[in-house]
Amino acid sequence: MRLTAVFALLLATASARADEGMWTFDNFPTDKVKQRYGFAPDARWLEHVRLASVRLAGGCSGSFVSPQGLVLTNHHCAHGCVEQVSTPRRDLVKNGYYARTPGEELKCPAMEINQLVAITDVTGRMRQATRGLSDARFAEAQRIETAKIERECKTSPAVRCDVVELYHGGAHHLYRYRRFQDVRLVFVPEFATAFFGGDPDNFMFPRWDLDMALVRVYEGGKPLPTDHYFRWSRGGAKDGDLTFVPGNPGRTSRLLTIAELEYERDVTLTERLVRFAEWRGLLTEFSRRSAEHARISNHDLFMVENAFKARKGMFDTLADRRFFAGKVAEEKALRDAIARDPGRKQRYGGAFEAIAQAVERQRTLDPMYRWVKPHPRNPLSPRLFSTLLGQAEALWRSVAERGKPNEQRLKEFRDAALPRLTMALFSEAPIYDELEIRNLGFGLGKLREDLGPDHPFVKAVLGKEAPDELAARVVRGTRLKDVAERRRLWDGGKSAIHGSSDPLIDLARRMDAGARAARQAYEETVESVLRRHGERLAKLRFELYGTKTYPDATFSPRLSYGQVKGYTLRGQQVRSFTDFAGAFARDTGRPPFDLPRSWHLAKGKLNLRTPLNFCTDNDIIGGNSGSPAINREAAIVGLIFDGNLPHLAADYGFVGDTGRAVAVHSEAIMQALRLIYGAERVVKEILGR
Amino acid sequence: MRLTAVFALLLATASARADEGMWTFDNFPTDKVKQRYGFAPDARWLEHVRLASVRLAGGCSGSFVSPQGLVLTNHHCAHGCVEQVSTPRRDLVKNGYYARTPGEELKCPAMEINQLVAITDVTGRMRQATRGLSDARFAEAQRIETAKIERECKTSPAVRCDVVELYHGGAHHLYRYRRFQDVRLVFVPEFATAFFGGDPDNFMFPRWDLDMALVRVYEGGKPLPTDHYFRWSRGGAKDGDLTFVPGNPGRTSRLLTIAELEYERDVTLTERLVRFAEWRGLLTEFSRRSAEHARISNHDLFMVENAFKARKGMFDTLADRRFFAGKVAEEKALRDAIARDPGRKQRYGGAFEAIAQAVERQRTLDPMYRWVKPHPRNPLSPRLFSTLLGQAEALWRSVAERGKPNEQRLKEFRDAALPRLTMALFSEAPIYDELEIRNLGFGLGKLREDLGPDHPFVKAVLGKEAPDELAARVVRGTRLKDVAERRRLWDGGKSAIHGSSDPLIDLARRMDAGARAARQAYEETVESVLRRHGERLAKLRFELYGTKTYPDATFSPRLSYGQVKGYTLRGQQVRSFTDFAGAFARDTGRPPFDLPRSWHLAKGKLNLRTPLNFCTDNDIIGGNSGSPAINREAAIVGLIFDGNLPHLAADYGFVGDTGRAVAVHSEAIMQALRLIYGAERVVKEILGR
Repeated sequence: MRLTAVFALLLATASARADEGMWTFDNFPTDKVKQRYGFAPDARWLEHVRLASVRLAGGCSGSFVSPQGLVLTNHHCAHGCVEQVSTPRRDLVKNGYYARTPGEELKCPAMEINQLVAITDVTGRMRQATRGLSDARFAEAQRIETAKIERECKTSPAVRCDVVELYHGGAHHLYRYRRFQDVRLVFVPEFATAFFGGDPDNFMFPRWDLDMALVRVYEGGKPLPTDHYFRWSRGGAKDGDLTFVPGNPGRTSRLLTIAELEYERDVTLTERLVRFAEWRGLLTEFSRRSAEHARISNHDLFMVENAFKARKGMFDTLADRRFFAGKVAEEKALRDAIARDPGRKQRYGGAFEAIAQAVERQRTLDPMYRWVKPHPRNPLSPRLFSTLLGQAEALWRSVAERGKPNEQRLKEFRDAALPRLTMALFSEAPIYDELEIRNLGFGLGKLREDLGPDHPFVKAVLGKEAPDELAARVVRGTRLKDVAERRRLWDGGKSAIHGSSDPLIDLARRMDAGARAARQAYEETVESVLRRHGERLAKLRFELYGTKTYPDATFSPRLSYGQVKGYTLRGQQVRSFTDFAGAFARDTGRPPFDLPRSWHLAKGKLNLRTPLNFCTDNDIIGGNSGSPAINREAAIVGLIFDGNLPHLAADYGFVGDTGRAVAVHSEAIMQALRLIYGAERVVKEILGR
Repeated sequence: MRLTAVFALLLATASARADEGMWTFDNFPTDKVKQRYGFAPDARWLEHVRLASVRLAGGCSGSFVSPQGLVLTNHHCAHGCVEQVSTPRRDLVKNGYYARTPGEELKCPAMEINQLVAITDVTGRMRQATRGLSDARFAEAQRIETAKIERECKTSPAVRCDVVELYHGGAHHLYRYRRFQDVRLVFVPEFATAFFGGDPDNFMFPRWDLDMALVRVYEGGKPLPTDHYFRWSRGGAKDGDLTFVPGNPGRTSRLLTIAELEYERDVTLTERLVRFAEWRGLLTEFSRRSAEHARISNHDLFMVENAFKARKGMFDTLADRRFFAGKVAEEKALRDAIARDPGRKQRYGGAFEAIAQAVERQRTLDPMYRWVKPHPRNPLSPRLFSTLLGQAEALWRSVAERGKPNEQRLKEFRDAALPRLTMALFSEAPIYDELEIRNLGFGLGKLREDLGPDHPFVKAVLGKEAPDELAARVVRGTRLKDVAERRRLWDGGKSAIHGSSDPLIDLARRMDAGARAARQAYEETVESVLRRHGERLAKLRFELYGTKTYPDATFSPRLSYGQVKGYTLRGQQVRSFTDFAGAFARDTGRPPFDLPRSWHLAKGKLNLRTPLNFCTDNDIIGGNSGSPAINREAAIVGLIFDGNLPHLAADYGFVGDTGRAVAVHSEAIMQALRLIYGAERVVKEILGR
């Protein structure tokens, strides 16, 4: 009886959640879309959309919008680049930038763009390699097979191959991308309009942001000719329109077990929240010291505020008793399905228990592991909040790693990953001593806070020094700030690196053994268990619900469908559009509610009724930033840049009633480019006339 | 069956928790202590201990240790005073202080000390006043009756009377105190030894801190003659010794329902954690600007780090699944007891449900209420983190409040509370513009973050200004920094205050209506419900478990018993004592592990084997800071200053197996006073020879 109720509930939500799903391009529910919207995207349409969409390897999405490699994305996706090409005398974050001529397009020091050209199912091969293996050996076999497949696929540095684990191990697909590492900045508006309303309005709707950027992909020093690109729509999105959003949703956790979700709520999210909160306080005060302090810390501050607010919404979702009860009911349906069928009991029994035990081990390991774990997207993740230390670690480890056979290396050193690593390592992006010292000092202090001053790793790292003192010494003393020195060490290999007396290399050396051991313990006793039993639960789900479902997000290309649609929140009706007039009405002249001078100068020329932002019920998540919103003709009607507050639940479940994707309207982009920024060159290029 | 199991569990824990309890002086379990330790404190002993113990109204405890009003407490309890009597040229926090002569004893601008002289049970009177009333009227009747009782009791400004609500309304007792507002600083060591190990070692054991201070109570300009004071023990605490700790535990939440505990975990604690974390980051960076910035922010930073770490431990306790399951079982026993008895169903039915509903209302009200709620101990709590704004609010409100009959006033304006309010209002403690601007700007920003920029209260407060901008304008422009101006406005009453054009008074005016409305909504729809149904559950507990229990802590005098005792944590044995040698061994020369120069100079003279800190299993909580640890002869064997990490669970339950109170040893105090600080005058006074 109870089971029926649960199934009825699942069914009810399944129909209520009609626009749910971040679908892989090879399993798109064309029939569902047809049924609901009377339009069936065919294989050609899907292929074109896939090839016209791109992934920004740093964690965003974008789309080709001209035959000459022009890419539309968000300002906040190009923010890092804009800051890196700025100087104390030329603050492009603050002032915006427009390359009036092709020659003025500015190279981004560390931006990589990927275009998905092929998907191959390698599930069978992966299964073959792991058949009958226990937890730790299972994970090792997966690692080795993954490395092999990726290596076979990667025929040149211009090719990127990722074995993507879908459905928590239910399937493995090989994604083959073209890799572009010469990307140049074409246009960004001022930060004040890109992020109008700032942190207070972030994740809110209504909104009035021009969160856009245009960059261009180059190949062989010339703009990339692009066969597949999106055309601009006439008039853009309208209420009720069917909208597709191709992009790269980063991570969702909709298939996690209750044990994993509780751990998210009680440990992972809380830890991140307090850490980001403190870092934010530090950076805020740091930025007050001078205009230059503000400039160099602007990007970190923006990132940390954004990350904080997103996680706060995620935490609140899991702390919502009703939402959590729904998750418990979902799991109960799976547990009951196992319990009442002896065959299933044999195939899937014990999976939930094994995962719960792994989570308990994670509880013990995390206080250290969180400091040394690899970042899923950034091979040189700022170690202890320091970019330099991440580079030093990569250099130190390269000695051991590059000497190993490909599949035995740490993931970030495998052949398939090396181009991304070396790009980050040899990036010309400026590094600011004072900010690095603050960040590293902060990281070292928090490391000590998590582990306690008597922990052997803390003692190995700090010695007798105080965190700030150590940070200042190594950052001031290192030569790694110079790209040439990093290149010299990389090229010099073992003798150069082991022979170096650089204080940062020395710090990386002191951390290495402890960090590797913690990573190994985690991978062998937690990750591998979650993998193996996650795969079992994925198979159970296929058995119960069929394969016409979508996998949790994995920062690989996906396609969602939905419509332009307002909503009702706490009894209040929220319309689906804002306009330019609204932006001027909200302007107080004070940050973050201060429209830039360019807007005020152009005001008289603007059609103030032109839509500025709008919202849709497409199923998106972080990583979809920069995704185009397109119509059935695959023409651009908007540019996704955010979700509203209720949408922050999307990590753990689709909330189609109130959760919304937030986009810049395509007409707003055109009006701004023409009338505010006089960017006729790119307008012509985009419109093809 | 299930019930039996639960009762068995409760019984089992009851015996395991032999030293549990923060007992009121009038309900001390003498027989239990006798049974366990062979010593039965009699009424005279208890009276003496009560009268020799004091409460520091700001949130600490202390004890008389000489016949001339000398009070022993913690450095961190006197920290505020030490900072306030410091100047840019004389940093007493850093350097410590010793008044070599009586004339050098320095007046603390805002320290109040209370001595509990009488306890009267007024439960009957309170019951009478509230008989048959609904939630909101119930609370109002309680408020009015409380004000009446307190006013009748308070015969002079030197008397303080509090109606203390015990057992969440199960009993009301009138506590009559002598009130002392002339308190002077006699001795503090350097911050570096008082808080050796700093935040990393806070809430840890083993420890090596000399967290002590000596102040003196004056009356009529002369040292207060004290009949009741604690003598110093010979040799101090030893392993296994029976120890009593009199003091004022501030708040525990051991009787909360599951709905309330979930709210604590998911909202209250999380909100405080992220807020304190961010403030900490801000203050840390602020303090780096210069030595003077460090000096003026030292106290705030110390407080916020301490509060953060304490709350982190509390959060972790509630996030501990096993601990929480125990709480659920306790509540289930109560719910089952109601369900299986029709009489009880009538008397107590619906209480849990009513409380859960009140918590849901709290969820809606808290984002605003948390900014305007009265602080339980500080009548001028820093509003939006600003001391000045708290003072401005008190001045603005005084116009309306002082005109009302006593019992209709806001609690902090009632006759019984006025001396504490005016003391804080007319405090000579310095106020630093730059720090006030930071703190107020921070508060205003967070207010906007909680409510959103479009909330009417936010608009009323901010207008078109940015938080930092408004903060700078009002702090720079106000004359309230001058005590004389605050006095002029208070004395001038309505015409002076309503006629003032002071920007801070104006800000207080803009906040007043919204703040009062939010406070009223909370008190009427949440607090009153929690009160009324809390009282019903208290009666149920009395019915089931008898009255030989202790109430949740209420920052009023209590007495706990226990013993000096090591413990085992994660397989590791922790001994109950540390010594001076350990402190020198831990010294790295770098903050916070840097012993002061005075210690190094005296090292040769010291007996390094003298115990420095020790731990006991006494049941204490924040507010017990500064409590003496005494033996059966009521002689001082130590000075409580902290608890260890497992002890942070104590808010929600006693954890006698691993939770420990941490104390400075009495011999350490004597050795330090004599050999490090040459404080012969006070040594003689304490030892009486």
